[in-house]
Amino acid sequence: MLTPEQQAEIDAERAEPRQTLRAVSPGMERHLYTAHPVLDHGFVRVIDYMGDDNAITQAARVSYGKGTKAVSNDEGLIRYLMRHWHSTPFEMCEVKFHVKLPVFVARQWIRHRTANVNEYSARYSILDREFYIPEPDALNAQSTVNNQGRGATLQGEEAARVLEILKADSTRSYDHYEEMLSQDGKDGLARELARMNLPANVYTQWYWKVDLHNLFHFLRLRADSHAQYEIRVYAEEMCRLVKDWVPFAYAAFEDYRMGGANLSGKGVECVRRMLKGEEVTQETSGMSKGEWREFMEVVG
Amino acid sequence: MLTPEQQAEIDAERAEPRQTLRAVSPGMERHLYTAHPVLDHGFVRVIDYMGDDNAITQAARVSYGKGTKAVSNDEGLIRYLMRHWHSTPFEMCEVKFHVKLPVFVARQWIRHRTANVNEYSARYSILDREFYIPEPDALNAQSTVNNQGRGATLQGEEAARVLEILKADSTRSYDHYEEMLSQDGKDGLARELARMNLPANVYTQWYWKVDLHNLFHFLRLRADSHAQYEIRVYAEEMCRLVKDWVPFAYAAFEDYRMGGANLSGKGVECVRRMLKGEEVTQETSGMSKGEWREFMEVVG
Amino acid sequence: MLTPEQQAEIDAERAEPRQTLRAVSPGMERHLYTAHPVLDHGFVRVIDYMGDDNAITQAARVSYGKGTKAVSNDEGLIRYLMRHWHSTPFEMCEVKFHVKLPVFVARQWIRHRTANVNEYSARYSILDREFYIPEPDALNAQSTVNNQGRGATLQGEEAARVLEILKADSTRSYDHYEEMLSQDGKDGLARELARMNLPANVYTQWYWKVDLHNLFHFLRLRADSHAQYEIRVYAEEMCRLVKDWVPFAYAAFEDYRMGGANLSGKGVECVRRMLKGEEVTQETSGMSKGEWREFMEVVG
Amino acid sequence: MLTPEQQAEIDAERAEPRQTLRAVSPGMERHLYTAHPVLDHGFVRVIDYMGDDNAITQAARVSYGKGTKAVSNDEGLIRYLMRHWHSTPFEMCEVKFHVKLPVFVARQWIRHRTANVNEYSARYSILDREFYIPEPDALNAQSTVNNQGRGATLQGEEAARVLEILKADSTRSYDHYEEMLSQDGKDGLARELARMNLPANVYTQWYWKVDLHNLFHFLRLRADSHAQYEIRVYAEEMCRLVKDWVPFAYAAFEDYRMGGANLSGKGVECVRRMLKGEEVTQETSGMSKGEWREFMEVVG
Repeated sequence: MLTPEQQAEIDAERAEPRQTLRAVSPGMERHLYTAHPVLDHGFVRVIDYMGDDNAITQAARVSYGKGTKAVSNDEGLIRYLMRHWHSTPFEMCEVKFHVKLPVFVARQWIRHRTANVNEYSARYSILDREFYIPEPDALNAQSTVNNQGRGATLQGEEAARVLEILKADSTRSYDHYEEMLSQDGKDGLARELARMNLPANVYTQWYWKVDLHNLFHFLRLRADSHAQYEIRVYAEEMCRLVKDWVPFAYAAFEDYRMGGANLSGKGVECVRRMLKGEEVTQETSGMSKGEWREFMEVVG
Repeated sequence: MLTPEQQAEIDAERAEPRQTLRAVSPGMERHLYTAHPVLDHGFVRVIDYMGDDNAITQAARVSYGKGTKAVSNDEGLIRYLMRHWHSTPFEMCEVKFHVKLPVFVARQWIRHRTANVNEYSARYSILDREFYIPEPDALNAQSTVNNQGRGATLQGEEAARVLEILKADSTRSYDHYEEMLSQDGKDGLARELARMNLPANVYTQWYWKVDLHNLFHFLRLRADSHAQYEIRVYAEEMCRLVKDWVPFAYAAFEDYRMGGANLSGKGVECVRRMLKGEEVTQETSGMSKGEWREFMEVVG
Repeated sequence: MLTPEQQAEIDAERAEPRQTLRAVSPGMERHLYTAHPVLDHGFVRVIDYMGDDNAITQAARVSYGKGTKAVSNDEGLIRYLMRHWHSTPFEMCEVKFHVKLPVFVARQWIRHRTANVNEYSARYSILDREFYIPEPDALNAQSTVNNQGRGATLQGEEAARVLEILKADSTRSYDHYEEMLSQDGKDGLARELARMNLPANVYTQWYWKVDLHNLFHFLRLRADSHAQYEIRVYAEEMCRLVKDWVPFAYAAFEDYRMGGANLSGKGVECVRRMLKGEEVTQETSGMSKGEWREFMEVVG
Repeated sequence: MLTPEQQAEIDAERAEPRQTLRAVSPGMERHLYTAHPVLDHGFVRVIDYMGDDNAITQAARVSYGKGTKAVSNDEGLIRYLMRHWHSTPFEMCEVKFHVKLPVFVARQWIRHRTANVNEYSARYSILDREFYIPEPDALNAQSTVNNQGRGATLQGEEAARVLEILKADSTRSYDHYEEMLSQDGKDGLARELARMNLPANVYTQWYWKVDLHNLFHFLRLRADSHAQYEIRVYAEEMCRLVKDWVPFAYAAFEDYRMGGANLSGKGVECVRRMLKGEEVTQETSGMSKGEWREFMEVVG
């Protein structure tokens, strides 16, 4: 995944600690620059960060004044802020990732607009010959119940046929990409045009910088079980990094966002009726079938 | 480019004018819903808009109070606002486009983050068999002077070879895409996976909504002669639409942004020296070679 | 609240319906330009809007393709989108308000950054002599249980003392503002300086333009019972307008956001245990006292 | 300006350097936490930062690939990026300030929306008795030529009269604020209401976090000679800090933004004609009087 040159660069960056007066997160320092592998050729690595758990409460205390000092310890205050959707203190932390990822994953990712991005330019430079080819257990059939989900894993010949196509087409596309660019004797097509022949499983890379509040929003959607597997594995890797960076904030995020649930007004009403001993059915709930199914998943 | 069903839908939408008390731009009403062709299968069409030239000055007058009424007519005030980078009154106009465009163009476009987007989902639905194949006069060699530009048009065999590759690979990729999705007897790969085989010249589409200030920013960069041809033709089509929508604002944009130039502090100094009759060269200008070349293009 | 000139302007704008091909919301047309009074001198009025309920589902259908046409009617699809936090289709509607409001309310309001604003400039123009003086039933003591809330209504002498101060200080501040600006014989202080003498209950006004998704976010926070009364009355008035503009979207917002509740992972666990008949207390819930109190308010 | 407690806190934070693997800017480390005084009671201090000059070129090289390594040194590349409005690499640096400032300055400042803010809450806490009272040489008359500017400095009795009003009204407002809040024997007005009596020269404070690109945009507008003096002094202080943080980027900003000029299409045309020896006047320039005056200021 990493070239020897890249590994040498990482080793060099990690070799020389410097002195700073800024807030330091020991958990995050351990991860700095290291490439955490994701999928077959991808990775996530932290290039820089700003702030720690304490930076969140410090910002909250600017807002709420002296009162907050007495009332709560850091962990309790962070849970309070998360519970009441006080998002601005979480915006006071920032992190910058270097990510290598297939183009079709990048296209989903970029829909989150409140972040800063520098992507490798295929107008300017030539892309590497690296394509995402799924592992056999990530080759699923179209879901028969959910228009945007996956069903059973493909087996045997089915799986083989698909892998064969993906590999052959990736190779051929890249061969032709190179051929069109090539200049020996011929003119060579402009890079900005040649790239159009490359399929969406080719790898790209970018720097992605985001504040903690918006990162949590991204992770809630993309580390969710309904997210596409290929973006979810990136989100899950980032969850592990964030947990080491801001442990209190991450724990609150896990409890209130990832592990929590939203009830509608009708859902709240149903819970109350059920707790009073009433038998509630979809018909008497006022909910549609889809809502009722999701509600029953929450209340178990 | 449009299916008969789509054309029928456009005709139906255009058949029934309704009454409104809102600001109406007659120039824009003429374009509403109509698909303006761009590239071989793409289009731009206006789905909705808010405001007109008058909405810009009306907002400015909320800010600046009664004074502005006397001082200027609408055109003069709009030129004043544009010249002094008072951007908020231009943000008071909004427009919503439906755009069909190749994926590699969409990837450039989406880097402009201050807009709202709903893109066709290839997780959820199946993409159409439509690919961008350049016209012969848009097939250029890599520029030899600019890392991110195009040089001479490819000729004869060179051009034929490239077109051949693009067409054959598009067809084969789509055949395989369909084959992987196909379910007759077999399981059929999930759409969210199958799409990864499609190259970047496949067409996608989206609704794109943006305010006039941010649209002008987009147009300044993308209707510029240094922009890639394939996005520039979209920007140029949108320029024509905006010109009919808000003629005063567009004229000011053309004069101060598209037709204007930024001089550096050194550039201003050089102009002054030159106007005093001094012979200024790159060496005595304090500029680098690149800066000097660009400066000379401005002062002609 | 409105000067005769302003009323005449509104009447003129409302007198002349024009023809348009755009989506029209009949419920919103009835409100256009009309100033809805809020507090003692404030108002909210709709200046323009883009889209209706149908514009939301139309955008969703661009994303999800043909499938969505069969599955759901408009109302059902809108509820589905709201329930699953698919925010982009709601961003396809836009609305522009003209609001007159006290400065301390404006300062809270502006913290919502994803909107466009043109505010009356007190650098450029002279503010009017209008101050917010609360009605007697809106004069509350500091809450003794909540650091950022109100307690009992002030009574008798207490209330009279406060009203007396607010009125006298407003009057005196404005007298001095005028006096400092005045130029008869004297030089007259610059407006941008004189304004610093005006208290936070002076009225300002602005145009505020926002998309429906971000407006819902604003309304959820500001029409909430914990919001300060003086901003809540604006939010409530806007709720009424939005309800007439996009009735399906507003109903979904009311059910899933305003009337709904967020449960933490611990909260979900407690509900499940309670539904199985277990007696759960704060001690056995794993929650802090504050969390438990809020949880009990939800499950009733 | 600082209480002994605050100074002790700063001293403690500055006493303990820690080790980090992140990019460190030695010039910025020297400023960390130190309160730089602005106006009579305000300050700016840097709480944290992310990145340095090298972080900008590192991000640019992710985008432009290997080519950029050979072509340019860091300084040249940064100048190139600034000249061609490649803003994303500058977004890769971030800085967090703690600012104490009068409310009327805060109201201007907050119009820059692409930043993160935590402001001291006067709903939750009680504001300090600190007001901005201008120095005599900052007391100007309204400009007679510019609706939003200042003219001559007020002299003698004029100045004394104004200072007298500002001081007396500030004192009285704050006395009454305290009196309304007071609870001895009486109920005490809620803080969220009492604050409305405080004038716009009362001091507030906030944490303000922003990326370098957006900070430059802020500084270009607010360190400009047309900005109001009371916000300009903050911007100028921040310019000094940024210069020590990212010296190459700041130098490029100074040359291309602060010291540069925008010419309209007409302006470019006039420069060309003038350089050919033609006598150009306002009448033959095609510009309005205002445009011509501004143009002549540029070309000297």
